[in-house]
Amino acid sequence: MNSESAKEIGEFALIERLRNNLGSVGNDADVIVGNGDDAAVIKAVDGKCWIVTCDVQVCGVHFPSMGDVSGFAVGYKSLAVNVSDVAAMGGRPRFALISLGIPEETPVSFLDEVYGGVRALSEEYDILVLGGNVTRTSGPLFVDVFLVGEVMAEKVLRRSGARAGDRILVTGHLGDAAAGLHSLSGSQTGVREDLYASLTRAQLEPQPRVAEGIVIAESGLATAMLDISDGLAGDIRHLCEASDVGAILWESELPVSDALLEAASLSAKNPFEWALHGGEDYELLVTTPAESAGALQEILRRVGGEPLTIIGEILPASQGISLKRTDGIFALENLAWEHFSA
Amino acid sequence: MNSESAKEIGEFALIERLRNNLGSVGNDADVIVGNGDDAAVIKAVDGKCWIVTCDVQVCGVHFPSMGDVSGFAVGYKSLAVNVSDVAAMGGRPRFALISLGIPEETPVSFLDEVYGGVRALSEEYDILVLGGNVTRTSGPLFVDVFLVGEVMAEKVLRRSGARAGDRILVTGHLGDAAAGLHSLSGSQTGVREDLYASLTRAQLEPQPRVAEGIVIAESGLATAMLDISDGLAGDIRHLCEASDVGAILWESELPVSDALLEAASLSAKNPFEWALHGGEDYELLVTTPAESAGALQEILRRVGGEPLTIIGEILPASQGISLKRTDGIFALENLAWEHFSA
Repeated sequence: MNSESAKEIGEFALIERLRNNLGSVGNDADVIVGNGDDAAVIKAVDGKCWIVTCDVQVCGVHFPSMGDVSGFAVGYKSLAVNVSDVAAMGGRPRFALISLGIPEETPVSFLDEVYGGVRALSEEYDILVLGGNVTRTSGPLFVDVFLVGEVMAEKVLRRSGARAGDRILVTGHLGDAAAGLHSLSGSQTGVREDLYASLTRAQLEPQPRVAEGIVIAESGLATAMLDISDGLAGDIRHLCEASDVGAILWESELPVSDALLEAASLSAKNPFEWALHGGEDYELLVTTPAESAGALQEILRRVGGEPLTIIGEILPASQGISLKRTDGIFALENLAWEHFSA
Repeated sequence: MNSESAKEIGEFALIERLRNNLGSVGNDADVIVGNGDDAAVIKAVDGKCWIVTCDVQVCGVHFPSMGDVSGFAVGYKSLAVNVSDVAAMGGRPRFALISLGIPEETPVSFLDEVYGGVRALSEEYDILVLGGNVTRTSGPLFVDVFLVGEVMAEKVLRRSGARAGDRILVTGHLGDAAAGLHSLSGSQTGVREDLYASLTRAQLEPQPRVAEGIVIAESGLATAMLDISDGLAGDIRHLCEASDVGAILWESELPVSDALLEAASLSAKNPFEWALHGGEDYELLVTTPAESAGALQEILRRVGGEPLTIIGEILPASQGISLKRTDGIFALENLAWEHFSA
C-alpha cells in the first residue's frame, strides 16, 4: 500500500509506474517501436508503418483557464503537440481521434473555436479526423488527441541511437514558449507589441517541425531524435537515458530569439533559464556524427526549413550531462517541467 | 456566434458539430471505415486492418466519484468500453495508449489499482499498452483510452448494412448495468447479495463480447453490428440511421436477467425501461437476414458464447422505429442516454 499522493511522486514516476505495471502484457509481433519513445510505431502496409501517440491538454495546466485563452489556441495546441511527437519519429501526421471533456456551461461558440483551431492545423498537414467522443466533466475543459502518423520502417528515428562523439543539434529557437507564458501571466510588461505577439504565439500556437523531421529522417544522417516538450535540460536527459550516453551542452550556442533576449532583459531574467528549462518548445533535438553535422545543416538550409544549430556533444555515459558556461562546466540539474511538481 | 451552452445542445449535437467542422479535411486513401461508426478502420498489412477508437471515462460521470468506486473498476471499465467498440467491428484488441488526468491529491495506491484494472483486461485479451501520458487536473480523475484492434478487411462489420426483413439480435442480457447503477446509488435495498453483485458487476466491470463479435463477423451471416452503449433504444436508432432503415422491437423478447427482474420488482420499476433506455450494456446488436438468424444463433451456441436472442425486425425507413408491447405498437421515443441532458 502506497500512501503517497500523485503530486508527491511526480509525473515521470507515475508514467514509469504505469509502464512497469503494464509493460509485460500482450503480443508485440507487429510493433516496431514500443513504449518509451515519443510515440509507438506499428506495422502498416508496403513497408510503411503507423506511428501512434496521444497527449492530453488541460485548461489551467497546459494553457490558461477558459476565460483567458481563445478556443482556437486550445484546439490548435492540442493537435500541435501530438503532431510534434510524430515529427520527432521522422513521420507525417495522417489521422486523428479527439476526446473532449467539456464543462456543461461551456459556450458552444468556444467549442466551435476549438474545432476551428484543430481544423486549421489539420488543413495545414492534411490530417483526417477519423472520430472522437465528447463527455461532460465537472472539472476544467480538456482535449485529448490520438494521432496516427506514417513513416517508412527504415526511416524511423528513435531516441536511443545517439553515440559518444555525436554532435547535438536543435531546430529553431529555444525558450520563446516559456517567455510567452510569462508574458501571458501578466508579469511581463513593456515588451514591444510584435515581440510580445511572437512569444505568446510560440506558447499558444507552437509550430511542429514536420518538414524538418521528415528531411532529417530521410537524410539517413541522424542517429537519434526527439521533440523538446519538457525543456532542453529535461529532454536531453531523456535522450541520454534512452541511448545510454552522457552529453555536454554549450550555453553560448543555444539559439535564442531577439524577442526572448528583450523579454529577459526587461524582466531581469536569464534568457538561458527559459531556453534550458522553459519547456513546450516543440523543436527537434537531433544527434548526428560530428562529420555529418555540417551536411545535415546544409540539407535543412536548402529545403528552407528552420535552421539547425549545433549546441553540444554526446559523451560516454560515465561523464553524465553537463553545461559549459563562460564561467565553467556544471552538472546540469534535472529541472524538467514536471506536471506534478510545478 | 452561438450563445448556447454545451449542456443545452447535448452530446450528439456536439459530436455532429465536430464532424461537420472537421470531416472534410485530409486524405482518406488508407481509410476503410471513416468517421461515424463504432470505430474507424485503416489499412495494415497482408489484408489486415487496424481498428482505431477512443473513449474517455470521467469519475462522477461514467462511474461514481473516487471515494465510491474502486480504482480497479475505473481501470477495467475504461479499457472495456473501448474493447467493446473493437468487438463491434468484428475485431480483436491489440494495442492501447492511455491518457490519465489525475487530481494532485489522488493516492498513488488508487492509481496502482487503476493500472491493475487495465492490466486484468489486458491479460485477458493479450493487449499491449504501447504508451500513454499523465497530467494533473483540478477536476475529477479521467481515463482516456485509445485502442487499436485488428480485423481482416473483408470481415469488417459496419452499422450501415442492415436491410428491411433482417432479424435483429442481441447478445447476453439487457439492463443489468443500469440496474447496477441504481443499486450503487443506494436507492436499491433488499436485493439478494448474489444478485446485487451480478448487477453492480455489469455496471463496473462490463464484459466486452470479443469472442462473439469475431465469430459473428467470421460467419459472414451478419449485415450490421454495433455495441450497445447508449441503451438499446438509442443504439437501434444509430443503426437504423446508418443503414437508412426502420425497425420494430418486440418487448416480450428482450433478454432480461432474473437479477434484473427481482431488482425491478423490489423498486416497483419496469424492467424493460432499464433494458431499453439504461445504457452501458456493452452487448452486441446484430442484424442478419431472417433465414440466417437460426444459423447464427447455433454458431454462437456451439462456441459457447453468450446466447443471441432475436428481438425484432428491420423495416423500411418509412415505417420508423417502434416497439411492440402486449398493449399495442408504439413509436419508440429517442430516450438514449445523453451525457449533457442526463
